[in-house]
Amino acid sequence: MTEPLTDLNRFSINQMTVKQLTLPELVSACVELGVPGVGLWREPVQQYGVEAAAKLVRDAGLTVTTLCRGGFFTAIDPGERAAALADNRAAIDEAVTLGTDTLVLVSGGLPAGSKDLHGARERIADALAVLGPYAAEQGVRLAIEPLHPMFASDRCVVSTLAQALDIAERFPAEQVGVTVDTYHIWWDDQAPAQIARAGAAGRIHTFQLADWTTPLPEGVLNGRGQIGDGAIDMREWRGYVEAAGYTGPIEVELFNDGLWARDGKEVLAETAERFMRYA
Amino acid sequence: MTEPLTDLNRFSINQMTVKQLTLPELVSACVELGVPGVGLWREPVQQYGVEAAAKLVRDAGLTVTTLCRGGFFTAIDPGERAAALADNRAAIDEAVTLGTDTLVLVSGGLPAGSKDLHGARERIADALAVLGPYAAEQGVRLAIEPLHPMFASDRCVVSTLAQALDIAERFPAEQVGVTVDTYHIWWDDQAPAQIARAGAAGRIHTFQLADWTTPLPEGVLNGRGQIGDGAIDMREWRGYVEAAGYTGPIEVELFNDGLWARDGKEVLAETAERFMRYA
Repeated sequence: MTEPLTDLNRFSINQMTVKQLTLPELVSACVELGVPGVGLWREPVQQYGVEAAAKLVRDAGLTVTTLCRGGFFTAIDPGERAAALADNRAAIDEAVTLGTDTLVLVSGGLPAGSKDLHGARERIADALAVLGPYAAEQGVRLAIEPLHPMFASDRCVVSTLAQALDIAERFPAEQVGVTVDTYHIWWDDQAPAQIARAGAAGRIHTFQLADWTTPLPEGVLNGRGQIGDGAIDMREWRGYVEAAGYTGPIEVELFNDGLWARDGKEVLAETAERFMRYA
Repeated sequence: MTEPLTDLNRFSINQMTVKQLTLPELVSACVELGVPGVGLWREPVQQYGVEAAAKLVRDAGLTVTTLCRGGFFTAIDPGERAAALADNRAAIDEAVTLGTDTLVLVSGGLPAGSKDLHGARERIADALAVLGPYAAEQGVRLAIEPLHPMFASDRCVVSTLAQALDIAERFPAEQVGVTVDTYHIWWDDQAPAQIARAGAAGRIHTFQLADWTTPLPEGVLNGRGQIGDGAIDMREWRGYVEAAGYTGPIEVELFNDGLWARDGKEVLAETAERFMRYA
């Protein structure tokens, strides 16, 4: 039985959850509400300026728990592959500037016309062989995120923790680990054992929460439910990662048109309250 | 390397693929196009009359490859559970009348408010312990269909072939086996080994095809792609089931608003052509 949390010390808000807030608005809302951590996204950080963003969050005393996201390694075309590697090196550099040790990876879907999942997964490993050492030299860990199997064709051919670990284990844990996100793995009865496998090797590089709600919207990307609104027992999953030795930040990352239409600070306060109640 | 098919002998059209056709229209289109098998659905068959439907297909010389569908075993309420058992006994009786030996099962999602996937899966096994012997006495095999994990909360808590077999193997193979449907399992790198496991035990009770296309529509139910339009290598999957000893009918079952809006006979002809080209 996992005990309830008694404070927000491990809570981190992923920027995407409240993307209606500018970066300064997000930072000041976090300070006001006692939220200690943020997971940042490259595009809004780049728009604000990476150095300026780093200073903003540092001056506010916030911890940057992850940078989202690198990846998209599955192209076949050599030019596209080289561009992906260069872009991921830039993402690693941005992570360093922002002071986070974790870059989340969404690995990429099937190239147009391809039906070869196995080949696509191998190209991910090929890219990590190049990027893993570069990342580790800079103190950044790459965190392969298995995405729900409904994204296998168009976004991420890595669909389970087992698949993610099969790739990650080709590399040292300080180079490559995994992202454990409840939304993507909650249906998988093998996931608790895979969390134990990941934890034993020090490969749980981040733990993220989102709830599973239906009906899914068209395109299925922006239907991640607020914590407590759906089918996932968050405390049970926190129990699994903690039993595997993970005691780090817990990020809430929601893509949800309904939440985005509301006042961002109100959504952040609600998310913190749900986190305390359900996580 | 799996050889192309040279005729339609193993082709079966699932009624849902061309649900715009009445049962007599479906039967006459099958005869005209040389389609030897049909997978039927309970609701349209009941509307036509089960005995009359049985006579119609029998007189046309068609094989009823499956009846879809029984299941929905996950309720907690005793009254609902008794009703589900009674309804599944009726489905078994209908299968007998129609002359098919296979009843496809969609096992059911999480009851409202429940987050207990494990408990729901156990209730499926409880129901099969009652229904399996009844089915086998009548010469009907129950075929648990793992549905894609995106249906885990609202439709089917059995998300992988491994889970389906873990349940099926509690019962004799002549009572309970599995449905292998490409749409639901194509992303799963464990599925080929699970097909081998199922085939070795004589538990592949039916093999169905649908392709994976994106973007998924709202609610995700009616986005199954025409064979050849999506990400799945149909011939590769036919190779897996044949290597596992399955040489029975191959049903094409598509839920697709675009196909339903077209002329049903034209869709059937197209589906047969795609089957020959890709399966």
